[in-house]
Amino acid sequence: MTPRPAPLIRGLWCATLTPVTRDGGIDHARFAAHVHALFADGVDGIAPFGTTGEGQSFAADERRAGLDALLSAGVQGAKIVVGTGCAALPETVALTRHAVAAGCRGCLVLPPFFWKDASDDGLFAWYAGLIERVADPRLRLFLYHLPQVSAVPLSVPLVARLAAAFPGVVAGVKDSEGNWEHTSALLAGAPELTIVIGHEPHLPRLMRAGGAGTICGVANVYPGLVRALLAPSVAPADEARIAQFIHIAFQQPFLAAFKAMVADRRRDPDWRHVRAPLVALDDAQRGTLRAALDRAGFPADMAAAPP
Amino acid sequence: MTPRPAPLIRGLWCATLTPVTRDGGIDHARFAAHVHALFADGVDGIAPFGTTGEGQSFAADERRAGLDALLSAGVQGAKIVVGTGCAALPETVALTRHAVAAGCRGCLVLPPFFWKDASDDGLFAWYAGLIERVADPRLRLFLYHLPQVSAVPLSVPLVARLAAAFPGVVAGVKDSEGNWEHTSALLAGAPELTIVIGHEPHLPRLMRAGGAGTICGVANVYPGLVRALLAPSVAPADEARIAQFIHIAFQQPFLAAFKAMVADRRRDPDWRHVRAPLVALDDAQRGTLRAALDRAGFPADMAAAPP
Repeated sequence: MTPRPAPLIRGLWCATLTPVTRDGGIDHARFAAHVHALFADGVDGIAPFGTTGEGQSFAADERRAGLDALLSAGVQGAKIVVGTGCAALPETVALTRHAVAAGCRGCLVLPPFFWKDASDDGLFAWYAGLIERVADPRLRLFLYHLPQVSAVPLSVPLVARLAAAFPGVVAGVKDSEGNWEHTSALLAGAPELTIVIGHEPHLPRLMRAGGAGTICGVANVYPGLVRALLAPSVAPADEARIAQFIHIAFQQPFLAAFKAMVADRRRDPDWRHVRAPLVALDDAQRGTLRAALDRAGFPADMAAAPP
Repeated sequence: MTPRPAPLIRGLWCATLTPVTRDGGIDHARFAAHVHALFADGVDGIAPFGTTGEGQSFAADERRAGLDALLSAGVQGAKIVVGTGCAALPETVALTRHAVAAGCRGCLVLPPFFWKDASDDGLFAWYAGLIERVADPRLRLFLYHLPQVSAVPLSVPLVARLAAAFPGVVAGVKDSEGNWEHTSALLAGAPELTIVIGHEPHLPRLMRAGGAGTICGVANVYPGLVRALLAPSVAPADEARIAQFIHIAFQQPFLAAFKAMVADRRRDPDWRHVRAPLVALDDAQRGTLRAALDRAGFPADMAAAPP
């Protein structure tokens, strides 16, 4: 068995929420403050403008400006994997070029999600077109598998074919399906890639099987819960805790719920804003969520990730 | 019963294919020539950059340039309903403003299709945000219902709510689901709107029920087939013909098949190109398609729409 190469990223990366103002613009000051707080919490890196970051709700210009503002605020590019996928290839190329030039560790790219029945040949051509047009050997690409939202799965044969055609450049997969069979098949079928997952409860299994870690949304609010799952030996109580948290959080539209939790944690109601078509939780929803979290022992100000 | 107001558009509008060069750029010269030929065929108007026009595969800049090139080639804005929907609101606003300023008859706007579980409240806020930001009383909006591709349906109550909130501006619905129950509910639930459909076989029913016509892909290749369905009295043979044609065309990936048919009709193989993630038909697929069409009496050079 060939040893697995060192992963491009490892550990606890946060699929960063994007704070917005009341009228929906990116709130750059809150964004930078949140990211600095996440690093103080102990996260290993951040992944802005993924799904949790409402990436597809922002125009290419806004995403560029958002990344630039984080870098200007002192966040290191080496600790950023940024979502640069758009529905259309030219805009994906432009955002990806910008991120590579900015020194980002990697780019996280959805398949072209408007087209639901794209063939593996078509998706291969699309990603190949991206890599060839970006034309920068520094590019490190994470393929983004999230079929329950994108409605466009990335098959293991497609991933393996891209990895073989663009070794080093196709660097990993963020597998957010939450289907362990698919994750396991990826680990076996593309052993040279850095495999990270979004579904936190699978982390102990992933780490035992040679995975690299997570890019996940829970790290915005309770990074310690996730950090515990990355340890060489995970206590059953830690596995039960994450399951319990997810059960509660997903009783509400999860993205608005995460923003409400950050608002509570930071004592900053402006964190509740989302951009349409998402809708912020109403008072009743927030009350229900907060009560359930408190009852289960997830207070608003729960301690950050243990070192 | 309140009489239905005069529709914003009526008759046979073509969901125009977008010709691309071998490297995927919009082929402006072929585009204008195709559109002029469609008008010579007797279509009443064109709808570029919808789904059949691969709209979501082109960057906002390319879509703007494509529309400008058609106008420069002498196509009247009054005969254009252009797809201006993007995944993100700001780019949808920018394209819609451009189309309104260019004098287009209407704008066809998909819901924000990345978010699959958007609520009616969230979708209402998104469309309202579009209308308020475009802020131009000349705007005439067609809501684009295509759940089998967008994965985001537009409910009849949402459509009625938008029509009531923005009378005149929310002008119609392009209902491409191909589900007569939904179309019928729209006609009843939003009687002030111009209802056009994409599924050609439903046209006789639609016209009897007070619908306005069609924006459809078949008009790119056999407009006469569709024109026949708009007559006050439709022969059963005409209904059978469209069903037969659709059965054959949809044996292959339909968009690539339509481009192959235009390539045959114009004796111009460059028409076969598509942009990734779509894939052009291979020789075997084209052979199968052409043979099936010829056997069924749909020759490549079949006459244009009767006057």
